[in-house]
Amino acid sequence: MAGNSFGEAFRFTTWGESHGPAIGCVVDGVPPRIPLEAADLQGWLDARKPGQSRFTTQRREPDQVKILSGVFEGMTTGTPISLLIENQDQRSKDYGDIADKFRPGHADYTYWQKYGIRDYRGGGRSSARETAMRVAAGGIARKVLGHVLPLPVSIRGALVQMGPHKIDRANWDWAETTENPFWCPDSVAAKDWEGYLDGLRKAGSSIGAVIEVVAAGVPAGLGEPVYDKLDADLAKAMMSINAVKAVEIGAGLEAAALSGEENADEMRKEGNRVVFTSNKAGGVLGGISSGQDVVVRFAVKPTSSILTPRKTVDRHGQETEIVTKGRHDPCVGIRAVPVGEAMMAIVLADHLLRQRALCGNIEN
Amino acid sequence: MAGNSFGEAFRFTTWGESHGPAIGCVVDGVPPRIPLEAADLQGWLDARKPGQSRFTTQRREPDQVKILSGVFEGMTTGTPISLLIENQDQRSKDYGDIADKFRPGHADYTYWQKYGIRDYRGGGRSSARETAMRVAAGGIARKVLGHVLPLPVSIRGALVQMGPHKIDRANWDWAETTENPFWCPDSVAAKDWEGYLDGLRKAGSSIGAVIEVVAAGVPAGLGEPVYDKLDADLAKAMMSINAVKAVEIGAGLEAAALSGEENADEMRKEGNRVVFTSNKAGGVLGGISSGQDVVVRFAVKPTSSILTPRKTVDRHGQETEIVTKGRHDPCVGIRAVPVGEAMMAIVLADHLLRQRALCGNIEN
Amino acid sequence: MAGNSFGEAFRFTTWGESHGPAIGCVVDGVPPRIPLEAADLQGWLDARKPGQSRFTTQRREPDQVKILSGVFEGMTTGTPISLLIENQDQRSKDYGDIADKFRPGHADYTYWQKYGIRDYRGGGRSSARETAMRVAAGGIARKVLGHVLPLPVSIRGALVQMGPHKIDRANWDWAETTENPFWCPDSVAAKDWEGYLDGLRKAGSSIGAVIEVVAAGVPAGLGEPVYDKLDADLAKAMMSINAVKAVEIGAGLEAAALSGEENADEMRKEGNRVVFTSNKAGGVLGGISSGQDVVVRFAVKPTSSILTPRKTVDRHGQETEIVTKGRHDPCVGIRAVPVGEAMMAIVLADHLLRQRALCGNIEN
Amino acid sequence: MAGNSFGEAFRFTTWGESHGPAIGCVVDGVPPRIPLEAADLQGWLDARKPGQSRFTTQRREPDQVKILSGVFEGMTTGTPISLLIENQDQRSKDYGDIADKFRPGHADYTYWQKYGIRDYRGGGRSSARETAMRVAAGGIARKVLGHVLPLPVSIRGALVQMGPHKIDRANWDWAETTENPFWCPDSVAAKDWEGYLDGLRKAGSSIGAVIEVVAAGVPAGLGEPVYDKLDADLAKAMMSINAVKAVEIGAGLEAAALSGEENADEMRKEGNRVVFTSNKAGGVLGGISSGQDVVVRFAVKPTSSILTPRKTVDRHGQETEIVTKGRHDPCVGIRAVPVGEAMMAIVLADHLLRQRALCGNIEN
Repeated sequence: MAGNSFGEAFRFTTWGESHGPAIGCVVDGVPPRIPLEAADLQGWLDARKPGQSRFTTQRREPDQVKILSGVFEGMTTGTPISLLIENQDQRSKDYGDIADKFRPGHADYTYWQKYGIRDYRGGGRSSARETAMRVAAGGIARKVLGHVLPLPVSIRGALVQMGPHKIDRANWDWAETTENPFWCPDSVAAKDWEGYLDGLRKAGSSIGAVIEVVAAGVPAGLGEPVYDKLDADLAKAMMSINAVKAVEIGAGLEAAALSGEENADEMRKEGNRVVFTSNKAGGVLGGISSGQDVVVRFAVKPTSSILTPRKTVDRHGQETEIVTKGRHDPCVGIRAVPVGEAMMAIVLADHLLRQRALCGNIEN
Repeated sequence: MAGNSFGEAFRFTTWGESHGPAIGCVVDGVPPRIPLEAADLQGWLDARKPGQSRFTTQRREPDQVKILSGVFEGMTTGTPISLLIENQDQRSKDYGDIADKFRPGHADYTYWQKYGIRDYRGGGRSSARETAMRVAAGGIARKVLGHVLPLPVSIRGALVQMGPHKIDRANWDWAETTENPFWCPDSVAAKDWEGYLDGLRKAGSSIGAVIEVVAAGVPAGLGEPVYDKLDADLAKAMMSINAVKAVEIGAGLEAAALSGEENADEMRKEGNRVVFTSNKAGGVLGGISSGQDVVVRFAVKPTSSILTPRKTVDRHGQETEIVTKGRHDPCVGIRAVPVGEAMMAIVLADHLLRQRALCGNIEN
Repeated sequence: MAGNSFGEAFRFTTWGESHGPAIGCVVDGVPPRIPLEAADLQGWLDARKPGQSRFTTQRREPDQVKILSGVFEGMTTGTPISLLIENQDQRSKDYGDIADKFRPGHADYTYWQKYGIRDYRGGGRSSARETAMRVAAGGIARKVLGHVLPLPVSIRGALVQMGPHKIDRANWDWAETTENPFWCPDSVAAKDWEGYLDGLRKAGSSIGAVIEVVAAGVPAGLGEPVYDKLDADLAKAMMSINAVKAVEIGAGLEAAALSGEENADEMRKEGNRVVFTSNKAGGVLGGISSGQDVVVRFAVKPTSSILTPRKTVDRHGQETEIVTKGRHDPCVGIRAVPVGEAMMAIVLADHLLRQRALCGNIEN
Repeated sequence: MAGNSFGEAFRFTTWGESHGPAIGCVVDGVPPRIPLEAADLQGWLDARKPGQSRFTTQRREPDQVKILSGVFEGMTTGTPISLLIENQDQRSKDYGDIADKFRPGHADYTYWQKYGIRDYRGGGRSSARETAMRVAAGGIARKVLGHVLPLPVSIRGALVQMGPHKIDRANWDWAETTENPFWCPDSVAAKDWEGYLDGLRKAGSSIGAVIEVVAAGVPAGLGEPVYDKLDADLAKAMMSINAVKAVEIGAGLEAAALSGEENADEMRKEGNRVVFTSNKAGGVLGGISSGQDVVVRFAVKPTSSILTPRKTVDRHGQETEIVTKGRHDPCVGIRAVPVGEAMMAIVLADHLLRQRALCGNIEN
């Protein structure tokens, strides 16, 4: 009933606070005999790691993940896999200010209301630091997809909007996403964003973003109607990421303005395969994958840690002001890209195993 | 692992196909000693019932709900509550066409891919008829909220966009929503929509919509980070409704374009109560309710049942065309309003009981 | 969190009270394309049905099960299967006595303590009438086993002890179990029990019993350590049956008195197959099936409905006496035999699908 | 769907292998603001620790538990609590023999059949070493009981039978259980067992045992019929402990031989309280606690690690023999006593929180 686990067949549970000794997770339900070592996960963690450019928080964490169980002689054994990352850069600073005051836009007030106690150091449990374990678990999920399915599934994310500035989709080039510090698939936009974000950073301000994650090679048949639909679980997965305020599948919000003629993707044959002439559905029909690309977008709000003083109250019920000093991301959406990819991998792996329970082995 | 249940503490399971003998649900986890009779649920069902204006499907169903268990002498007993609605208007028509062909935009193809069999009559399990049970279960959830909390929680929904036409929020009047056939809170917009939708209906076309659901009186403290956050469960709940393609909390997608200064809601005191000077967060911070109004919006795609012939394939793998005749909603979003309200009530009741498990009795 | 569901992959939820309009269940997670009709389940229900001999309660219920969903043209569709049995023999009698008084040994007092309200008619939710739905769901579970596995699994139950009288295992003959009203595999014991039970019945007394259920043909590999072990789930399944007070696997309680040499089953080869030279383990090692017969026994207490006056209290807190009149089973253990078989089938089907999720298709 | 978690409201997940770097668990659902430090758990672990007398395995583990999350300034925060114990005494020995051969009575063969791979070092995941985490989690569960309930709950275990030798219940003295190395409440029996077990130990043999766990002070109303009954969950909890083959509640197996007159516990008043004149039910009626002592017994088989050569097969399918050398417990049942206590505490804490969800705050 507490909510620190995700998934049913591929199920993981995370634990840990921003400034505790370590963070970690346990992944249960990983099929046996999959080659796995820490290095397989480290690559994904390194991509998410803070402090890689001037555009993300300057907290320095090596984020070295350790596998403590569930792997024997380089292979998964079917038993739970425990992952652990030690927290290293826990600055011994004075937290007096945020210990007492509730930062607007942060979870300080609601944690206090819910639990009557909170670990205020760096946001405690509500810190985005927890997402490191999602990325690690996502690395295992990718392994599961590769192990169970005969063909590879590709999962890639991109930043498609920074503040009010959207990319030009005509410029989309996946290769570009690793060439700039924003995961931006449009090299022209990426160029513009650099100056824009520098301005915000220097002003101590912050801005929101939109991330798009695309999974290609997903077999048809994943999703468990009518409540654990694939898109419903993706919506939950993405909305559970820190600072996310909206989730779209395929045409998303724009589908509201479309007519039935414009919206429904027609079907044709291409050789022996059924193909769709468009993908407004985002690869999900009736809550079940159709074999098309699964396309999810989510909006991330600007971080609430800014240098402008803000009105708030403290835990003694007094009105006050607060300025959130310290290490911040001017656009936390950037670091949400690998997290969104990881959650996509996790939802797909979970539903792949669930579909296997119901219908037996499956192919893409 | 199959997905026909929702919720953990307030948990309901629905069953039934569009043209089977009946549809129903079982609600487990309802606290004992709550006054309940079928009439309490019938009102909500009547609001959702099809065939009430020329703008919704002409299928005629009395939708009389029966309570088969869990209530004794007018009070809940704490045991599972079984609800049942008999299907009556099951036209004995020829389904030959859709039996063989996959309607674009519908779940026909994916059900076939997933299960290798499908009850094609009226969409079978994928029909929006299932949502009647959500509305009935939502009626019980409202009773739970009223029973557990000292103050009433108000949950109301409205259609805020039909196709490209948005309401003017300056005109918002909740009382208006029951005065037009659209649940539209803006009387001016409602007037315009009438002609607009008539045109679409006569053309055999359809259009999407956006629904907003607002819950007032929700206590602070609901939501179970970091995966069963209140907003994450709301996103799942809404995305699981037929035809929904996007879910927003508070500022939603627009948060992406906001700066940190614009987005974070400041806090003040009003007498002894903490109040917020705005509600960009939609009543949820860090996945936990803040005591503000919980605000959710979701986008519904246009129904794919239209009179224009569409290209598709049949189950023998042949290319073909299809025209979906029969009874349709030109704007299915209209009937999604009470369903969205019901899912809001269910998520809140579930999290209220979960919070009670963790922290004991709770007040709003 | 309320507890009216069982199983994870093969999951069923029951509802209904002894004297409500109907009882029923929803089975979710049944693989598609399995031939199924009500008649397949009726046979199992008829075997359990009360009133078949003078040794079971004289309540007369036709117990005609209806399938309301999840089956199309004689085949399962992968959607939830709703089963319903109408209650018919609800005698309109005066319940005044048990409405107020708590019958010793019954659930009256604890339901009152837990819920603060109870449907006292015939025991309400705590009545063994609920087990009819277990038997029906068990019929579906048997179908699942037959569908997923290439070879048949045989599940059979027997009464091996009535009161102090145990069978002679040297006389064990499965064919005998359907030749006497006790499911007794020992024709000699069955003869003796007849007079014994007649005596108890006429005296208005009752007696306990021990049931043994054996599943043959179960593949190795079922069970999910370390908490959802096959034997742990069997223990829960059997202990959840009304009046059960003990569960044993294999040697059971006697294992406590054995030495390591006596207890561990040795392994040999028989052609290409691994065979065990004994089955003290009852077919489960480390919580996982070994391929041997899965052997479970459970003890059923005597029904507490007897004609001897018993001391008790009433709901007003007054000391009083009670005699439980009405229709009773002198040995409720008899009717628990098909229920035990059903729960075995359900646990095996659930774990078969779970193992398929983890490791793919499986053979016996 | 994999099975390494237990409980719903108080939910814990264990991980780790006997000879991996560490074992651990995550406990989710612990209410906030409960004082907790590692020392609170260490006491229970020390009681369970191996190597304390010549009658338990000579493996030497300090078993120092660390709390890695969920506690802030000495108080629980409502977030998941991660516990970790490093494995220290991992002898670098040659496992060649058991790497290839399946030890009779152990889980070697079934893990191989299920997963197709196994960590054979010390039994890997199937080792009783996992139970250390149950004991640690049980320590937290006791804290939860103490925090939520106004009066203390006492949970105590005892060895009541070693091999064929039962205690004399007339001699029962709880204080005695900590005075001998067997948790035996009968000082006379304890004396006799010493010589008996020494003989077995020297012979390289082993013997089974029966453990009884009694919880006093449990409020009426715990348990969620009809599947998550308190006794059903206790049965599952105890049967999930390594080597357990039978579970009894109250009169247990003996209830089968009792008449209705003998078995049903009568009720009287004692001042304002309802009291029972006996406790055949073991404190559970209809799956719900009655307020009486909750009494559970379970039988543990003898360890299969003995010095007598046993026939078996190896993983290449060849017949062979095996002698299990190394460190063993002649009576593993002894060390199961604190584990049974821990599982009792966990089941009670889980159901206490579940009852609080359904019915609000509760008192004993």
